[in-house]
Amino acid sequence: MTGSNENILHYVDGPLFVIKLNKPQSLNSLTGLDYLRLAELVDKADNEPNTYFTVLQSTGRFFSSGADFGDISSKAQSQTNETELEKWLTNFLSRNVYVTSVFNRHKKILICCLNGPAVGLSAALCALCDLVYAMNDKVFLKYPFMELGLVMEGGTSVTLPSKLSSNQVTDTVLFNKNMTYEQLQGRIVTRNYNLNDANEFNERIIKDLKSRSKDIYLPSILGVKKLIAANYVDSVHRANSLEATDALSFWLRGEPQRRFQILKAKLRKHKM
Amino acid sequence: MTGSNENILHYVDGPLFVIKLNKPQSLNSLTGLDYLRLAELVDKADNEPNTYFTVLQSTGRFFSSGADFGDISSKAQSQTNETELEKWLTNFLSRNVYVTSVFNRHKKILICCLNGPAVGLSAALCALCDLVYAMNDKVFLKYPFMELGLVMEGGTSVTLPSKLSSNQVTDTVLFNKNMTYEQLQGRIVTRNYNLNDANEFNERIIKDLKSRSKDIYLPSILGVKKLIAANYVDSVHRANSLEATDALSFWLRGEPQRRFQILKAKLRKHKM
Amino acid sequence: MTGSNENILHYVDGPLFVIKLNKPQSLNSLTGLDYLRLAELVDKADNEPNTYFTVLQSTGRFFSSGADFGDISSKAQSQTNETELEKWLTNFLSRNVYVTSVFNRHKKILICCLNGPAVGLSAALCALCDLVYAMNDKVFLKYPFMELGLVMEGGTSVTLPSKLSSNQVTDTVLFNKNMTYEQLQGRIVTRNYNLNDANEFNERIIKDLKSRSKDIYLPSILGVKKLIAANYVDSVHRANSLEATDALSFWLRGEPQRRFQILKAKLRKHKM
Amino acid sequence: MTGSNENILHYVDGPLFVIKLNKPQSLNSLTGLDYLRLAELVDKADNEPNTYFTVLQSTGRFFSSGADFGDISSKAQSQTNETELEKWLTNFLSRNVYVTSVFNRHKKILICCLNGPAVGLSAALCALCDLVYAMNDKVFLKYPFMELGLVMEGGTSVTLPSKLSSNQVTDTVLFNKNMTYEQLQGRIVTRNYNLNDANEFNERIIKDLKSRSKDIYLPSILGVKKLIAANYVDSVHRANSLEATDALSFWLRGEPQRRFQILKAKLRKHKM
Amino acid sequence: MTGSNENILHYVDGPLFVIKLNKPQSLNSLTGLDYLRLAELVDKADNEPNTYFTVLQSTGRFFSSGADFGDISSKAQSQTNETELEKWLTNFLSRNVYVTSVFNRHKKILICCLNGPAVGLSAALCALCDLVYAMNDKVFLKYPFMELGLVMEGGTSVTLPSKLSSNQVTDTVLFNKNMTYEQLQGRIVTRNYNLNDANEFNERIIKDLKSRSKDIYLPSILGVKKLIAANYVDSVHRANSLEATDALSFWLRGEPQRRFQILKAKLRKHKM
Amino acid sequence: MTGSNENILHYVDGPLFVIKLNKPQSLNSLTGLDYLRLAELVDKADNEPNTYFTVLQSTGRFFSSGADFGDISSKAQSQTNETELEKWLTNFLSRNVYVTSVFNRHKKILICCLNGPAVGLSAALCALCDLVYAMNDKVFLKYPFMELGLVMEGGTSVTLPSKLSSNQVTDTVLFNKNMTYEQLQGRIVTRNYNLNDANEFNERIIKDLKSRSKDIYLPSILGVKKLIAANYVDSVHRANSLEATDALSFWLRGEPQRRFQILKAKLRKHKM
Repeated sequence: MTGSNENILHYVDGPLFVIKLNKPQSLNSLTGLDYLRLAELVDKADNEPNTYFTVLQSTGRFFSSGADFGDISSKAQSQTNETELEKWLTNFLSRNVYVTSVFNRHKKILICCLNGPAVGLSAALCALCDLVYAMNDKVFLKYPFMELGLVMEGGTSVTLPSKLSSNQVTDTVLFNKNMTYEQLQGRIVTRNYNLNDANEFNERIIKDLKSRSKDIYLPSILGVKKLIAANYVDSVHRANSLEATDALSFWLRGEPQRRFQILKAKLRKHKM
Repeated sequence: MTGSNENILHYVDGPLFVIKLNKPQSLNSLTGLDYLRLAELVDKADNEPNTYFTVLQSTGRFFSSGADFGDISSKAQSQTNETELEKWLTNFLSRNVYVTSVFNRHKKILICCLNGPAVGLSAALCALCDLVYAMNDKVFLKYPFMELGLVMEGGTSVTLPSKLSSNQVTDTVLFNKNMTYEQLQGRIVTRNYNLNDANEFNERIIKDLKSRSKDIYLPSILGVKKLIAANYVDSVHRANSLEATDALSFWLRGEPQRRFQILKAKLRKHKM
Repeated sequence: MTGSNENILHYVDGPLFVIKLNKPQSLNSLTGLDYLRLAELVDKADNEPNTYFTVLQSTGRFFSSGADFGDISSKAQSQTNETELEKWLTNFLSRNVYVTSVFNRHKKILICCLNGPAVGLSAALCALCDLVYAMNDKVFLKYPFMELGLVMEGGTSVTLPSKLSSNQVTDTVLFNKNMTYEQLQGRIVTRNYNLNDANEFNERIIKDLKSRSKDIYLPSILGVKKLIAANYVDSVHRANSLEATDALSFWLRGEPQRRFQILKAKLRKHKM
Repeated sequence: MTGSNENILHYVDGPLFVIKLNKPQSLNSLTGLDYLRLAELVDKADNEPNTYFTVLQSTGRFFSSGADFGDISSKAQSQTNETELEKWLTNFLSRNVYVTSVFNRHKKILICCLNGPAVGLSAALCALCDLVYAMNDKVFLKYPFMELGLVMEGGTSVTLPSKLSSNQVTDTVLFNKNMTYEQLQGRIVTRNYNLNDANEFNERIIKDLKSRSKDIYLPSILGVKKLIAANYVDSVHRANSLEATDALSFWLRGEPQRRFQILKAKLRKHKM
Repeated sequence: MTGSNENILHYVDGPLFVIKLNKPQSLNSLTGLDYLRLAELVDKADNEPNTYFTVLQSTGRFFSSGADFGDISSKAQSQTNETELEKWLTNFLSRNVYVTSVFNRHKKILICCLNGPAVGLSAALCALCDLVYAMNDKVFLKYPFMELGLVMEGGTSVTLPSKLSSNQVTDTVLFNKNMTYEQLQGRIVTRNYNLNDANEFNERIIKDLKSRSKDIYLPSILGVKKLIAANYVDSVHRANSLEATDALSFWLRGEPQRRFQILKAKLRKHKM
Repeated sequence: MTGSNENILHYVDGPLFVIKLNKPQSLNSLTGLDYLRLAELVDKADNEPNTYFTVLQSTGRFFSSGADFGDISSKAQSQTNETELEKWLTNFLSRNVYVTSVFNRHKKILICCLNGPAVGLSAALCALCDLVYAMNDKVFLKYPFMELGLVMEGGTSVTLPSKLSSNQVTDTVLFNKNMTYEQLQGRIVTRNYNLNDANEFNERIIKDLKSRSKDIYLPSILGVKKLIAANYVDSVHRANSLEATDALSFWLRGEPQRRFQILKAKLRKHKM
């Protein structure tokens, strides 16, 4: 498997396959390899015969602050004999297409436990989940595509308008706003646990899911998922190919790299 | 026509064709034949040249508590020379496909007057209506597919995600929750009459519809229905075939029968 | 399982699951129960882990002359306490919807070996197959829906226009013409074995398939089927619900029953 | 260009192309020619290489009270050698199809600044915009299609159900209700400026948009618009052809003309 | 009704509604008003309760040579106070959208009897028919959109690729080639009468259709048409709005007018 | 730009942008980098304002024998610190998705000049072209996905069934057959030049295209392409994401690598 096991933990607990982001020190920013590792684990859960719920959890203050700036900067500056096209095919397009597709084709119930904000591709994956739980009303999603000189990715051009309204999505994405708990609740977030501790939040969800699983006929879960997914799977595949290949031209113009560089500098300053 | 006229009443009143569930003693639980009778009446309204509104009303405390457990149990236990496949084709698939299709192809405005909760297939039919009015904020819809070892039916895998969001539908259906008035209002329910008496509620709606019909050009009604329905009719047909044939495999495994049996026993206990 | 094992044989041979219609004396006309039995076998093949090809073969002069007139007539005349609606839901709609859906959702390569003509629902199932082989250029498909006072069924309103052109389908179906080998070849039939003996034809195909299977990576077969089927599965489901519920109104008017009766009489005369 | 420049003003300001309705005395009711002029300006903005936002603003108390009754009445009564079909092809169908299509194919961000109510085709165009801002909570949209003996137009049979729910749209359109700020907010309106002066409102938006444009990579705007629009452009085109040709039969029956005439008389009375 | 009755004749004969182009001297070139008249007659047939087949026939050497050049030239040169946009909305867009939609929504079987070539919009309408019969193998269809500085119209961007292959359509349309009998047969033309006299051809078809109608259950005809049309009606509506509004920009640039003028001059020369 | 200019030549000639595969010694087998280079050139043509036709030509006996076995083998055996997932994301998925998308989104007329057979991804790209010309009747397309332990790629799960019939495609792909000129003509190939010399063939096409371009209004070309492409662009994007991510699991199992290795060995033997 790809990537270090320390960054993303996982375990099986009855009908649950739990995947936990474990980079609290960096607000769970994820490198390209981390995203691949995450997708591999989600796929592993798909093939686990006794798994009915794939539960994404995290640690610390953020669910995930998105792509690791340092990772992108080091790729942008790396001196290889690759052309720019090859570099961004490898480091952007292939990973985005793969991760998005793995989430889109998942046959189990995908649950995202928002202990805090999710940003960028991580927030896109959250919008691909079947259920999203919030630790409290401070969580938000952020899609900083415009700030980064990119376009929508991770299927968001389909998932967000289908869950919210297209006007609200345009407003939020275009002007780089947070998608707040008020906007998310009832549309993306279906339960607010009103807690302040990530560990307690994570444990409560595990307990709840195990308790609820007792009353229901487990094979029906996969049947319901299949029927609901039939409404959007094709559209997300269509968007996946379109989004990723459209975005590539932005990477080839160099704008995202330049903007990631600036943000990284800001971040360093901020830390000092 | 199928079924007894006593269980489901109907009459024509100007541009309205009113159909009334009349089994308050059983909370308007419906047998397979009752559902067929209901569909026949809805189809009759479709062919009535002066009908513009098909109004579904009910009596007593529930709009409809869904499938009659006793009816299903007696089918499950009947000793005929049918195979299990034949039995459930007749008693489940054929009726669900037909009733769902009759509601889906209806050319008049279908109005559901929720004097109380609607459950199961009855709640699915409510989600196929163009307008839903609530007697008060105590009404709810319930889709106990998981509890019964089934999957979504009656077009709900399309209608519910298109009216609510797919996350909210997944949460409610998967964990067998009530879909409360708060969730329904503005999305499925468009008016709350804030009343406590079913008769008064039913009469007020009839009066309102007749009064409103005076100001509008009646043929425009069918034109508007046709244009809005063009967005979903094909998808509901697609789901109808998929849902019903997927569910059949659950009936063939015997799980729904077993669970209906348990619920029937609980109900009997509860009454004693 | 449904129906007598004598009428429809089956066996497993390596990657093949062979199903053989075995009513040559009646030109393999099939009763409602025969069609259910056929669908059950196709479904059984779908669940057989080592099956990659589901091969439909037949015996005698016809692949299948379609619905058994006697079966339909006896249903039409049966004195039960069912209403007409119940009778035709059970004897027409439920079976057509189920059989069509089982063929449509099949995950293996479905192969129809036309040793002779196929008629009616049997011809519709042939149009749902991935591969159709002809014994010689005398085979044809016939869709006598107009002659029987019916409409298109078994997904033919989608499968035929997608494989032939809609004008050609309209011409053939509307005027009750044979769809000849010339029309079928290259569009539905992909190989003509130029043989005159059904046994030899059936054996040659088995031998060919087994020989060809050796060179190819078997899991790729299911991958190719899934990708090609993604183009039409939803449309066939949509048509399945629409066709079956539209046709029901024709059965309720009694026209198909009347016409089957006439054809049965003609057939009897012809035999004398 | 079509129509007088006085009625609809426009200017370019950096990345903005501002179009302003300027008939406050008639509550910005628009003649057929005014709508064409508006569409031409929107198209002009589409071809302006430095434009990223096309901003529709208005003046006075209403954003636009919809079609000019006098204009329609004078057409209805004009004595030409045209047949009724020719007359309404020219004065209704061609304009509606063209204006709707121009809005639907627009590649820049379309922003509607609701200084007050929008009615009829103007309200339909508002529902085709990517962003809608409200001056305060007194704004509303009104679709008086039923009152006028018409059906849904301007793509509303697609845009409204996709942004609100189909039940809510049916209720509002069928019974000629205002679509209030409460219904619009979060679904169509994404920001309420809480102001009372149209000029101040218009200026504030211009200032906000210019300020926000500074932080974002402008080419990304067009990329985001393209990806979100991919979800609905085809459906709106489908509805455009269907709505306009369906409505024509209502014009040929003379009902809308009769009703516009009555409304015009009422309006005159009201003014006296 | 629109237009002179002499140019387009019609009569009812049992289940047939026959419409006959009657301008043999101009090879049945049609003015804008002629096309409207044709559409009105097709719509009249749709509303005729006893009509099952709407039969389009013609006279002389051509089925129809398409738009009347003189008519277009006179419009192009007319001095009115219309802008160019208004002129071509009236004289091109509104008519094309309406005629295409009337053919697309037709509920009866539309039959085109090709006594000779069909060109331009007339050839587009032929491609919207359910059945096309050829008098002999000299008939062809011609879509001179490129020669005229236009784009595909009359739904041809959908109908032609669905009946032929998109490569063949691209080749024929792009390079202004005749679509020959060899290309049409089996895909658009389903029968060749091998005759040389238009009257005899027309009569034979009438006789054939009446004879064939006797054996079939007439209501089944409308059922089959509805099911087959469900495959394409939405796509043709989508194309109708897109094609017509795209083409308008070509008319506004003046290229088609210029090219019609040249062709008209050539034609005059040719006649001398 | 990516890759050596020697392998793929290009030049602009009036409205033509000509791209020529120039590796005749290896039958124009293409490495991963060659495919990227080809896509870049196709994209360059898309952005060339005076280009209307993008013409793909080749040299020697084959148009292209597909993926270079040596290139794949060396990747399979390379010792890097990449995981298998990373390796095949870079060397398979990213390239296939990108190249397919570039062809699918192309706005000019794409012409493939088959001087000989095309195999694999090269044959897939041929099926994405608007026009395909054959040098003679010995050309064929070959999709050896099954032989290689893969599934359909390059959009072929959509393009081939839409141009041929799904049965014919299944037969050809599943059993690794050549798609012969007889199958291609009229469906994919629209003209056979009946020549034996590749240079002469290439020159004749250039001359023909330049000559034909004179009579037509060039902007209409892009309009026709846009309208026809509207039928399939979304489906090809959907398939692109699905095909590439499905295929990845085959690469991860190692089967294609093993089979490419065997084929490479056979080829070496064959040359000795």
